[in-house]
Amino acid sequence: MMIIMRTTATRNQIDEVVKIVQANGLRAHLSTGEERTIIGAIGDGRPVQKEQFFHLPGVDRVVPISRPYKLASREFSPANSIFNLDGIQIGGENIVIIAGPCSVECRSQLMEVAEAVREAGAQALRGGAYKPRTSPYSFQGLGETALEILAEARQATGLPIVTEVMAIEQIPLLIRYADVLQIGARNMQNYSLLHAVGESQHPVLLKRGMSATVEELLMAAEYILSHGNRRVILCERGIRTFETATRNTTDINAIPVLKSMTHLPVLLDPSHSTGYWEYVTAIARAGVAAGADGLLVEVHPDPAAAYSDGGQSLKPERFAELVRQIRGVAQAVGRSVAPVVKVNNNGQTHGSR
Amino acid sequence: MMIIMRTTATRNQIDEVVKIVQANGLRAHLSTGEERTIIGAIGDGRPVQKEQFFHLPGVDRVVPISRPYKLASREFSPANSIFNLDGIQIGGENIVIIAGPCSVECRSQLMEVAEAVREAGAQALRGGAYKPRTSPYSFQGLGETALEILAEARQATGLPIVTEVMAIEQIPLLIRYADVLQIGARNMQNYSLLHAVGESQHPVLLKRGMSATVEELLMAAEYILSHGNRRVILCERGIRTFETATRNTTDINAIPVLKSMTHLPVLLDPSHSTGYWEYVTAIARAGVAAGADGLLVEVHPDPAAAYSDGGQSLKPERFAELVRQIRGVAQAVGRSVAPVVKVNNNGQTHGSR
Amino acid sequence: MMIIMRTTATRNQIDEVVKIVQANGLRAHLSTGEERTIIGAIGDGRPVQKEQFFHLPGVDRVVPISRPYKLASREFSPANSIFNLDGIQIGGENIVIIAGPCSVECRSQLMEVAEAVREAGAQALRGGAYKPRTSPYSFQGLGETALEILAEARQATGLPIVTEVMAIEQIPLLIRYADVLQIGARNMQNYSLLHAVGESQHPVLLKRGMSATVEELLMAAEYILSHGNRRVILCERGIRTFETATRNTTDINAIPVLKSMTHLPVLLDPSHSTGYWEYVTAIARAGVAAGADGLLVEVHPDPAAAYSDGGQSLKPERFAELVRQIRGVAQAVGRSVAPVVKVNNNGQTHGSR
Amino acid sequence: MMIIMRTTATRNQIDEVVKIVQANGLRAHLSTGEERTIIGAIGDGRPVQKEQFFHLPGVDRVVPISRPYKLASREFSPANSIFNLDGIQIGGENIVIIAGPCSVECRSQLMEVAEAVREAGAQALRGGAYKPRTSPYSFQGLGETALEILAEARQATGLPIVTEVMAIEQIPLLIRYADVLQIGARNMQNYSLLHAVGESQHPVLLKRGMSATVEELLMAAEYILSHGNRRVILCERGIRTFETATRNTTDINAIPVLKSMTHLPVLLDPSHSTGYWEYVTAIARAGVAAGADGLLVEVHPDPAAAYSDGGQSLKPERFAELVRQIRGVAQAVGRSVAPVVKVNNNGQTHGSR
Repeated sequence: MMIIMRTTATRNQIDEVVKIVQANGLRAHLSTGEERTIIGAIGDGRPVQKEQFFHLPGVDRVVPISRPYKLASREFSPANSIFNLDGIQIGGENIVIIAGPCSVECRSQLMEVAEAVREAGAQALRGGAYKPRTSPYSFQGLGETALEILAEARQATGLPIVTEVMAIEQIPLLIRYADVLQIGARNMQNYSLLHAVGESQHPVLLKRGMSATVEELLMAAEYILSHGNRRVILCERGIRTFETATRNTTDINAIPVLKSMTHLPVLLDPSHSTGYWEYVTAIARAGVAAGADGLLVEVHPDPAAAYSDGGQSLKPERFAELVRQIRGVAQAVGRSVAPVVKVNNNGQTHGSR
Repeated sequence: MMIIMRTTATRNQIDEVVKIVQANGLRAHLSTGEERTIIGAIGDGRPVQKEQFFHLPGVDRVVPISRPYKLASREFSPANSIFNLDGIQIGGENIVIIAGPCSVECRSQLMEVAEAVREAGAQALRGGAYKPRTSPYSFQGLGETALEILAEARQATGLPIVTEVMAIEQIPLLIRYADVLQIGARNMQNYSLLHAVGESQHPVLLKRGMSATVEELLMAAEYILSHGNRRVILCERGIRTFETATRNTTDINAIPVLKSMTHLPVLLDPSHSTGYWEYVTAIARAGVAAGADGLLVEVHPDPAAAYSDGGQSLKPERFAELVRQIRGVAQAVGRSVAPVVKVNNNGQTHGSR
Repeated sequence: MMIIMRTTATRNQIDEVVKIVQANGLRAHLSTGEERTIIGAIGDGRPVQKEQFFHLPGVDRVVPISRPYKLASREFSPANSIFNLDGIQIGGENIVIIAGPCSVECRSQLMEVAEAVREAGAQALRGGAYKPRTSPYSFQGLGETALEILAEARQATGLPIVTEVMAIEQIPLLIRYADVLQIGARNMQNYSLLHAVGESQHPVLLKRGMSATVEELLMAAEYILSHGNRRVILCERGIRTFETATRNTTDINAIPVLKSMTHLPVLLDPSHSTGYWEYVTAIARAGVAAGADGLLVEVHPDPAAAYSDGGQSLKPERFAELVRQIRGVAQAVGRSVAPVVKVNNNGQTHGSR
Repeated sequence: MMIIMRTTATRNQIDEVVKIVQANGLRAHLSTGEERTIIGAIGDGRPVQKEQFFHLPGVDRVVPISRPYKLASREFSPANSIFNLDGIQIGGENIVIIAGPCSVECRSQLMEVAEAVREAGAQALRGGAYKPRTSPYSFQGLGETALEILAEARQATGLPIVTEVMAIEQIPLLIRYADVLQIGARNMQNYSLLHAVGESQHPVLLKRGMSATVEELLMAAEYILSHGNRRVILCERGIRTFETATRNTTDINAIPVLKSMTHLPVLLDPSHSTGYWEYVTAIARAGVAAGADGLLVEVHPDPAAAYSDGGQSLKPERFAELVRQIRGVAQAVGRSVAPVVKVNNNGQTHGSR
């Protein structure tokens, strides 16, 4: 932490700051320039409340030096974290495509879309059982019924399941059905929930909050990692800006920034990050070109009849075209999309993924 | 809902949209201009998925007409909602000042600040028992111990208690100690929690999310109201923008906007909305001048030693000066701040509030 | 400037940075912590390109220390800058209210509004002759004809004139008619224009760009000040954020922040910062409560017929009510609004301002 | 334009709005729902001040229907605008790469970088002669000397020149030297300058303002197009958001959005849109994958010694690698980058571009 004194700071004010730095168990290191003095507060990496220096006379600004996250950082773990999800490598050389409807609406809808995305080349199935909705009057998800349908789709297609957790008490049930627990954007700083999924030791897909900085996303991941749960997947899903032509603004910069700051896998959700199906494929291509480790894509057999997010959902044939294009872009950046997995009647998979 | 067709839309495309509007149980109303056709989808106020029209050929944009909130709207309830909190009127003519430390740190800290804010003129005491912290390594609050200290302060000063709820399972405990449950900015769209505090029937102070629109804040309030819990207080606490000179940007416009859109009481938290103690008093004055029904202010006996938010906390004497200035501004806008309440040794209050 | 090395930086990388710091004529000052080394680059205040260090191996981040503005800073000039504008003190104890229509539309419109705002208590008249409009097909202002009408209004009411300059070549004409040249938000970083108004030595009202930081506003002021033109008035007029309930978001924090950073007078334009007439008065009150030195308010005799900005313009009687309320708030914060100035038939003023 | 009445609007209020709609020469079209009435104001496409309806009693909101730009729209001109720039097709099948230093610093710097970018595969050379700088104390460009150096580089390499225009009076000089006039982000709404470059009939590269919406960018283009100058190239260069990990946030969504809204060519500037050289190549790939027609990239022979933007400039060898990678991505999306052009000693080019 660097404490930057005002140009008008007196010797006494500087001494006072130094005293408080030392009272915090830190070493104080003075740099005295022509214009002003800067006091370095050098410690052992333990967090110090920078704000306590704001009240001291003569202090202009306080600049933190240490990154506040440790376990999530590349410096802590230089190699990419790769983990196996029911045969799929996440964070490895292959681009992972997770697809499915926003909400599980009924058995036939989910089975149809699960089959379609598998055939098109998806490696995992998404589908919401509990839905965070802006309006209390909107469809809130089928709950456990949806989970049973997801289990059936898993059985039929061999695809692992990603579904959202909204509350701590849902966790025991969800981990019986889901391969990956998704934390939605609105819950990215729901620390009680982060704590609980951390303790669950279940894989987590953590979506960036719509106004969270990249650093705050890593701090949220740190909450989960600090409980010993190392299987955390990050997901950029668009941030909120002044632009209204799209639902959110895809922060494509966040892909290479995250890849340089952390060892965790980074996905892009082009459905939420644009909000309009017609832009999804272009932005999916951009995500993979920028270095994303995978995609999370909303697909619905009949988007105009969807209970939620219909406007940003792809029809199965458009999703198949997306996968085709992603294969090309992946190759251009030295990566690949795993070939389509064949399943037999028992839902057992054949062929390497 | 208005469905705006492209200038190039064909007759067949228009007919198709009309058919789907009608299939949703709505009446379709065509306005045909020189340039384009607009289809009004007129219904009975039930929510319709506007996004389902995005996929239809010839559609340019879809514009919602109805406000998505009902119970929170001024149209639903034209008069200000005023409710009584242990003798204090919230939402009435008097400006309500709630003050106290960010976190309860220990008994002596809280008792000292509780006494000080009461003497300075606060009508309620705030203090965190469970703290949402960006870092898992930061102080997370004293939990139930803090609640016991708050209860003691309540006994000693007669001030009702406002404290934050972070998880559903904390509610039963918190309602035994707290007069008002605070939902923090990061949990404004934690719908499971909103649902649960709605059912609790306990007064709720709902803080605006840092990137939530005013409309989304009202939708979050609607979640609570829709469970029959009508004692909801809204609180502007700053939004996230590009400006870094302050911690957040106080959306002062939100005060008159909310007062025109909703009947619920609206407070301002100038501590979080600025992030620096030196701006708190000026922005508190601005909030009351703009029409806020009250303030939520962080006060700490020794901000430089605070476990959290020290940089934005006022010392008790500065808080007393804030209250003095607020009295003047309140009077200028035709309102007032209640006189200081005297308490006897048993914590019983004297004098009208 | 502090150059923060990565935790993994080698001794050689540190030495290389030190060498380049010294090659820039700066002293290098090392702070070596447990985790990492920080190199202070200490100079004589001349600007150094911090970006040149981004390419050097082992560098994590570079943190500037010096404020980039000098002449605009409170440290340079601790006392408030107060200057006289045709008898009005700007930046002094009195709140200055500048009012008038967005555009000068015709003689009768301007004369009517000029008379009305003077009677209501305005101290200066605003009115656009050259209008920056988003659309090339919108009304672009009456140009020199408008200036002649403004001159007539000045003669009749005694009010000094504030009008916008959009291009360098307009300056010679404008300074013949206008007492203050306004730089609009969209031109805040039009450096050629800033340079030219700086050289003009004419008073300047500089509006904050809609996505400019407070620091960038001060840098724009510095452009003008650096040409020896010290009569610069700053104006907050709302910033662009995600919120769409209002046209802009009034950055009310900017008022006390600017007052602490600079000695220049700071106004608020509540018309643009809200975009809706119904919120203008509340936000005008907030601005004065927060410490603004004055207001810039759009007034139109018939807003529904205005060529531009009708939706945010006050009718004269509402403006008179605004002034009345502002007098109350000004008094509450220890300031005042000058009494209404009487003019005789020759436009000569009576009574002190 | 749709005028949405409040649910509480009276019959008289509705009639009053209809009267004013008609007084504007528009037809009024009523849709009467269960909850409220909507009045369509149907005209011949001429702009109408929507704000004039804000003051009328009973009006809730006003929703514009027509897009405010015409000449820039895809509906006006469905096919891509392709134009020839000294042998290069802009907006066609080939990806165009424009590269060079932020500022022309001296003859040897520019000649070295011009040669290097040509050899690496750039099709045009950028370099600033007049520089918009945040600080009046920073390097402001070499002016005409820079233009002479650019002309020499053009002669030597055969690359057409892109350089920024900051003021109207620079235009006559600049069009003698430059093939394309660049309008910088800070001048995107400098309407006097847009007007003047429109009249110049010279090709224009128009950069998006840092807080301009996509629609405002198209309105700025409309200013130029409305003067009959059809050679306008749009450029996304990052927008300002709350995220501070990068200098700006690349609005990658804007690429497909613009391609669907307008026929004009769309470039991406990954140097400004990220601000850090290490992210430039990844974001350049993303831009081409998303559908951009070209790139604008800052290259400097010695970024650590650059007078401006060194931190985001690529070294020539890194730029060569960028072009190599872009060739791969272009191919994956069905496009290509023109082969490197050979020049003879007289600067004459050989081979097709």
